[in-house]
Amino acid sequence: MGRLYVSLMHYPVRNKNGETVASAITNLDLHDIARVCRSYGVARYFVVTPLADQRKLARRILQHWLAGAGGDYNPQRKEALALVRVTADLKETCAAIQSASGQKPRIIATSSRGGPDTIDFAALRAMQKEERPCLLAFGTAWGFTDDFLDEADHLLEPIRGAGEYNHLSVRSAASIILDRLHDP
Amino acid sequence: MGRLYVSLMHYPVRNKNGETVASAITNLDLHDIARVCRSYGVARYFVVTPLADQRKLARRILQHWLAGAGGDYNPQRKEALALVRVTADLKETCAAIQSASGQKPRIIATSSRGGPDTIDFAALRAMQKEERPCLLAFGTAWGFTDDFLDEADHLLEPIRGAGEYNHLSVRSAASIILDRLHDP
Repeated sequence: MGRLYVSLMHYPVRNKNGETVASAITNLDLHDIARVCRSYGVARYFVVTPLADQRKLARRILQHWLAGAGGDYNPQRKEALALVRVTADLKETCAAIQSASGQKPRIIATSSRGGPDTIDFAALRAMQKEERPCLLAFGTAWGFTDDFLDEADHLLEPIRGAGEYNHLSVRSAASIILDRLHDP
Repeated sequence: MGRLYVSLMHYPVRNKNGETVASAITNLDLHDIARVCRSYGVARYFVVTPLADQRKLARRILQHWLAGAGGDYNPQRKEALALVRVTADLKETCAAIQSASGQKPRIIATSSRGGPDTIDFAALRAMQKEERPCLLAFGTAWGFTDDFLDEADHLLEPIRGAGEYNHLSVRSAASIILDRLHDP
């Protein structure tokens, strides 16, 4: 069975005005999503940004929890953050997965916008039973650019709640999606 | 059908050493959980703390998004945060629900610790079909005190992931639980 990988992409994403930007690293995105990944058996959680100073910031946060005072204070947090790897782009992320698993991952983009050609949760659960690893990519800010969504192998259907409102944080979306993908 | 209410309780919860404390309000707990509540049709989201200065802080954050610059900047955020009410304790929270719905709510506590006498998600979904409103209570810090769990009408089963690791943020737990309770 192929393993599931998660990436939180800070580029290429859109800002409020639809412009392509590199968004800022958020401390709680590292923690919350790492804890969900650890809970649901995700193999690695990649935090991806092209900005060198932002990668440095992410590694400094990780260092505090993995080798610094944070790990003594909260060993469970250390265990979750040990899943995190900081990378510059999708290519480096896929190379790391290929190096760990021997295979190129399928790239599954997530988006609250949806699209004409999405796969549903059942289809993604079925893909996870195949040997090839899956990389589930989450966008920050106002979500992925259309170009990124077009380049991904698949686009996962959006989370639907009780109505039309569809503005979850990426932390909530990652939590719900990993729970829905979990096949007990 | 009774409506679902959510509360985020900053007291009575435990700190790392098991002592009963009042925890601090966290900005992102207000935002993330309000957005999930809005997405899943929750009637009200109560942020509960006995500390007057913390209630003032919570109301100041809300004011920014509801009446200040935040609402113009991000109307979707305004729509979510409009669900939030700030209260001092469980009694005031239940009184507000009774005043809105005409009935005292059932209190359903959540905990990652579990217990001998939990209800499962199917049972809670069934309760939501009854007329009586349900208040789903989330604890901050290291979770509710045993006394609080004993006093609640029901304790919801913990979220189980892929293994023994069970240390989600309250933001992730609330997201997953509201998604699991949603009956499309």
